[in-house]
Amino acid sequence: MRNILNPLFLFIPFILSAQSPATEDLLQYVHPIIGTQRMGHTYPGATSPFGMVQLSPDTDTIPYEQNGKYNPDVYKYCAGYQYDDKTIVGFSHTHFSGTGHSDLGDFLIMPTTGELKMNPGVASQPRSGFRSAFSHSTEVAEADYYKVKLEDYNILAELTTTTRVGFHQYTFPASDQSHIILDLISGIYNYEDKNVWTYVRVVNDTLVTGYRETSGWGRTRTLYFAMTFSKPFEQYGSRNYSKKEVYRGFWGKFDQDHNFPEIAGRQLRMHFDFHTKEGDQIKVKFALSAVSTEGALLNLRTEAPGWDFEQVKRQGQAAWNTELSKVQIQAGKEQKDNFYTSLYHAYINPTVYMDVDGSYRGLDQVNHKADGFVNYTTFSLWDTHRALHPLFNILQPHRNVDMIRSMLAHYSQSPEHMLPIWAFASNETWCMSGYHSVAVIADAIVKGNAPFDANAALDACITTSNRRSFEDIGVYIDKGYIPSEASDVSVSSTLEYAYDDWAIAQAAKKLGRMDVYATYSKRAENYKNVFDPSIGYMRPRLSDGSFRPAFDVLSTDGQGFIEGNAWNYTLYVPHDPTGLIQLMGGKKHFVQYLDSLFTMTLPDKFFAETEDITRDGIIGGYVHGNEPSHHVAYLYNWTDQPWKTQERVRMILGNQYHARPDGLGGNDDTGQMSAWYIFTALGFYPVAPGSDEYSLGSPAIDGAVLQLENGKTFTIEAKDQSEKNVYVKKVTLNGQILTRRYITHDEILNGGKLVFYMSAKH
Amino acid sequence: MRNILNPLFLFIPFILSAQSPATEDLLQYVHPIIGTQRMGHTYPGATSPFGMVQLSPDTDTIPYEQNGKYNPDVYKYCAGYQYDDKTIVGFSHTHFSGTGHSDLGDFLIMPTTGELKMNPGVASQPRSGFRSAFSHSTEVAEADYYKVKLEDYNILAELTTTTRVGFHQYTFPASDQSHIILDLISGIYNYEDKNVWTYVRVVNDTLVTGYRETSGWGRTRTLYFAMTFSKPFEQYGSRNYSKKEVYRGFWGKFDQDHNFPEIAGRQLRMHFDFHTKEGDQIKVKFALSAVSTEGALLNLRTEAPGWDFEQVKRQGQAAWNTELSKVQIQAGKEQKDNFYTSLYHAYINPTVYMDVDGSYRGLDQVNHKADGFVNYTTFSLWDTHRALHPLFNILQPHRNVDMIRSMLAHYSQSPEHMLPIWAFASNETWCMSGYHSVAVIADAIVKGNAPFDANAALDACITTSNRRSFEDIGVYIDKGYIPSEASDVSVSSTLEYAYDDWAIAQAAKKLGRMDVYATYSKRAENYKNVFDPSIGYMRPRLSDGSFRPAFDVLSTDGQGFIEGNAWNYTLYVPHDPTGLIQLMGGKKHFVQYLDSLFTMTLPDKFFAETEDITRDGIIGGYVHGNEPSHHVAYLYNWTDQPWKTQERVRMILGNQYHARPDGLGGNDDTGQMSAWYIFTALGFYPVAPGSDEYSLGSPAIDGAVLQLENGKTFTIEAKDQSEKNVYVKKVTLNGQILTRRYITHDEILNGGKLVFYMSAKH
Repeated sequence: MRNILNPLFLFIPFILSAQSPATEDLLQYVHPIIGTQRMGHTYPGATSPFGMVQLSPDTDTIPYEQNGKYNPDVYKYCAGYQYDDKTIVGFSHTHFSGTGHSDLGDFLIMPTTGELKMNPGVASQPRSGFRSAFSHSTEVAEADYYKVKLEDYNILAELTTTTRVGFHQYTFPASDQSHIILDLISGIYNYEDKNVWTYVRVVNDTLVTGYRETSGWGRTRTLYFAMTFSKPFEQYGSRNYSKKEVYRGFWGKFDQDHNFPEIAGRQLRMHFDFHTKEGDQIKVKFALSAVSTEGALLNLRTEAPGWDFEQVKRQGQAAWNTELSKVQIQAGKEQKDNFYTSLYHAYINPTVYMDVDGSYRGLDQVNHKADGFVNYTTFSLWDTHRALHPLFNILQPHRNVDMIRSMLAHYSQSPEHMLPIWAFASNETWCMSGYHSVAVIADAIVKGNAPFDANAALDACITTSNRRSFEDIGVYIDKGYIPSEASDVSVSSTLEYAYDDWAIAQAAKKLGRMDVYATYSKRAENYKNVFDPSIGYMRPRLSDGSFRPAFDVLSTDGQGFIEGNAWNYTLYVPHDPTGLIQLMGGKKHFVQYLDSLFTMTLPDKFFAETEDITRDGIIGGYVHGNEPSHHVAYLYNWTDQPWKTQERVRMILGNQYHARPDGLGGNDDTGQMSAWYIFTALGFYPVAPGSDEYSLGSPAIDGAVLQLENGKTFTIEAKDQSEKNVYVKKVTLNGQILTRRYITHDEILNGGKLVFYMSAKH
Repeated sequence: MRNILNPLFLFIPFILSAQSPATEDLLQYVHPIIGTQRMGHTYPGATSPFGMVQLSPDTDTIPYEQNGKYNPDVYKYCAGYQYDDKTIVGFSHTHFSGTGHSDLGDFLIMPTTGELKMNPGVASQPRSGFRSAFSHSTEVAEADYYKVKLEDYNILAELTTTTRVGFHQYTFPASDQSHIILDLISGIYNYEDKNVWTYVRVVNDTLVTGYRETSGWGRTRTLYFAMTFSKPFEQYGSRNYSKKEVYRGFWGKFDQDHNFPEIAGRQLRMHFDFHTKEGDQIKVKFALSAVSTEGALLNLRTEAPGWDFEQVKRQGQAAWNTELSKVQIQAGKEQKDNFYTSLYHAYINPTVYMDVDGSYRGLDQVNHKADGFVNYTTFSLWDTHRALHPLFNILQPHRNVDMIRSMLAHYSQSPEHMLPIWAFASNETWCMSGYHSVAVIADAIVKGNAPFDANAALDACITTSNRRSFEDIGVYIDKGYIPSEASDVSVSSTLEYAYDDWAIAQAAKKLGRMDVYATYSKRAENYKNVFDPSIGYMRPRLSDGSFRPAFDVLSTDGQGFIEGNAWNYTLYVPHDPTGLIQLMGGKKHFVQYLDSLFTMTLPDKFFAETEDITRDGIIGGYVHGNEPSHHVAYLYNWTDQPWKTQERVRMILGNQYHARPDGLGGNDDTGQMSAWYIFTALGFYPVAPGSDEYSLGSPAIDGAVLQLENGKTFTIEAKDQSEKNVYVKKVTLNGQILTRRYITHDEILNGGKLVFYMSAKH
């Protein structure tokens, strides 16, 4: 399946990579369909850059649990869509991109004709519900535009968005029974009782408002909406599917199921009915707000006042082109497809999370006003601190600052007095490990992209890192490592904390707070406390200081690491490769270790027991599909064989990224996998965010021009680069030969030209 | 039981009624305990005039349903407290007064000592839970003050309030295990799954905020709180009793049950633990808001910044004394007890429903700002349009205007475009029948108490009365009556609509809108369409115009009337007694009819089948315990035997109102029963709100001075009034003999003196 070229791409006109970058329409290289098959967990639908609305088809709505137990099938549907599916249930307005855990899928809309069906039905039984068959042959997925024919109803569905408004355009056949379903039950990762409450009011025959509260991965989440139709509905109705008792009493005076404007309950679906002539278009604008229905109406009226679908699509795509054009690359078609789709995937998270007037709901469930910044959410920080936020420090510095301001607002609203861990939509999920917000903040401070109160931000980092009751931080501080008795992930957490502490130290140094620098520089060395020199691996250590006897360096199950094994995690000292190499017996042995990693054969049981990883995401024992190894290929730069970095990163680029629906080797993880691609394709990578250095690799493009927000441009040229010419003979920066294996952030921001001289030989 | 004088009253010093009114402390006559036994459904706890907080003991928390069926025991607990009970579960912050349906009981607090018990236990098993035994001998219930000893714990509990803040003072014994329980499950009329969601955060060791959403009688109700302690708690914890699955996942990193500051779920209780020395007082201030936790904090800090319980109590009681002093009566002790307790009960509904900054949550679940008025809620309009709002037009005109503004705000937020029916706390319950908001509005317009846009208000009345889909209004308009086939309460609804329509006509006339006046004057005559002259009663009429054959004039079951029988409801033409008398065969026959009503003996089955009525609330066949007959005793004034009005009203005053816990013959109905008492004791009554006339009766006091808001005083004197001298020989108004049987609103508002000359003979 992987090797079959998807027909979708056959129709995209080929444009010479040598064409003038300034006038090129870069949208042609963006394929939201990439990653929608298997493990990518991306969605193909429409969204604006960093948009609050992600309007996309859901091909199934799988419950999180079956018979009270975790349903493994749900994992496939983190983004609501799986390429292999044959039916579309409907189009919902919120989706994570590339996550390995999920939620959202709010407010599913489905146009139908004929007999009214209010249940979605099942994929295995055609026409068993309102879902419809569809085919990829009629499907178009572009940046901020999605189109598909709903075959069961002969309805053409088109979607586009503004930042806060989903815009649907449905072209109907002639029918005296045309319907638009609004499913307020449907959602992604639907736990039993995920739906807490739904409230809807039909304001008039073209306007409906309301909200839904859910308790899923986000424990207390409320989303308001305002939905408006281009054509008045003739009648409408609702069904309450809740088995729970709700007092009805005098409400019985009304027929609440038909044309009754005030609907509330736990499990609701609605239908709006029309007569249509052949080709009639019914358009729906659906605005979101996390604050109030008034906020949703304000967003609707501000962002999408009119009914011109094409215009909204044009504006959305123009906004994408503007964002994408900040990096103009010279490369072949497939590289461009991969590159710009990666940039697209990188630029859809974190997401705007406030109304047009700056109102947003805080972590404290109180409505706040963002004072002088755009509030963002969807912080998958265990993933994104590695390369996505560093990428933003170069290409989206203003947005990155606003993201940090949003994180600081979260902190100020946190009763635990902690920066976000994995936060979205006024909720903290505590997902994964570490306190990697500090790395994002430190990286910005160190790189001089910190026009906020940096000392207060550093204080927030310090407070977070001293929250003793959070995941063994107390014992970590006391003992310098987390004892194996205390935690199943004692080693990886120790390593992650040690890196984060180093990041805090770097920020403190930059701000001249040398006491903090000293304290955290010492904490940063804690990685050494879980290294067992007798075997040469990071290893669980018991409370008494001894290493745990039972231990398997390949297994990911119960060995002290989160989503990884000792082989990979032993290398997780991004902030001190030199110290690590010394610990591991010197450069020579270290190179051997890295070589083994990339060439070993993993036993089958590894794949059975390891979450979020398939054979696709593996090279030897190197796991690219999960984040802890993302810096690993660059570690050869600290040895005498940097050419192996160049070789390995090109191998990874080639193996792990393809311009196909199944083209991603693992979850895109809200853009982290894509950010790795972008950096690596450009020829450098931030091994340790919090440092101002980018480790040099092997550019996979012929050239690139980065348009920086400060008005300067940074040009990259890769002379003689090709699939074979992956080795770097020489690098010049602004004409001077570079004798080091990194460039600095200032060197990029000052503008200039970086030239790689490529060769087939190292 | 009824005839045993409650010991509580024995200790209240007797003060001569002749004492100077201006300096008298009227609080001594207010006994919140009146009506707490049996059917009164009042609560004994603390509240401020029209206060948003009603902080009162709950003696049981009975589920609305048992085994999926209505549990009749729940009815007793409409106000949370029953005098005969021996245990107190705790003190909750919201209560209806005197209703026949219920909800609320939010945020129950209970102080305990010893082993931590997190379940309330049951009354029949001592110490089976956190509830405590108590005795009336230690109980003190005053206006805005309640005190009781919790015997199981030797804790003295005292309660007072500001408008929006409940203030608890608990005097503990020495204990190293002292607790304060916050029960977020408890509520009045707890339906299965009434609790929708609860969210709590522990901000610090003296401050807790959060909210609870419920779906009970109020379908979508959210109440926020801010709770602060005078003494820091040493530790705290929560328990989630929900059987429903909530995603926990990474939350498992924390021990969420102990000292964890962020709690959410469907069924929560919390405990806060202290060490106490003998006599230690722990005070709790508990502020409410319908808008946000920020709003609750604002209310807390604005209204109750300090910790002086006595001062807050003094202020609250002073506010009560100010309100009560607007009517200074001369009367005996029991009359004063009844009168001022009635005034107290009349002045606790409707309730303020906005934050100190004017923010409130509207019927549309959107937060609004009250622009130039105080927003009120708790509109039991089927009851209160009769006498409570007319009373307010005299004694609380400014508040009545704000109540109408609140009703108009409700209208503007109503997707049905209807004025409130029975509304509370951002919810409409549609309870009872009619659209009696229009009577309240018309009464204010006709009486000149309408400093709002009266034409817009009239438009709202017109729109409401033309909402065809609401309870048979459509067919009522088309046919002039509601056919029996369409409704179980076709006759009473027809009669109520006809009266309401007349009220609209009166307002229209006052505003010069004569077309409206004509239309609604015609609709007002619709009562004639359900009168069957062949039997002389109002009677269900079929769609074809014929009267329904099967008919029982005494039965209240399925005869076409809501909470009443044909005998009583036939008299429900308050707006046209003259027309009714003519219809019923003239004055002589009409007097006989009335006489029969007051002297008949009802069959036992009447009581079995009739809701909200016991033998206590009945005189002959006259039902005082329910509202549709409240005007009936005054109808003799339209005959040649007005002395029978004088006799009957005195009989009702004597029979139906006693200064004892069981002293009310029926539900006080948010003050309507009390308002009847006040008017009648003063000697006049608004038979048809919407008219400016008050029908004269027989004053049961020696004298009264009404301090009007316009600065004038209206004085009533009842010369030689006594239990025997109930007949009115002569009436003078400002010295002029009154030859009519009514006075007008202007005559009251202009100030002056009304003198009744009483006699033992008619």
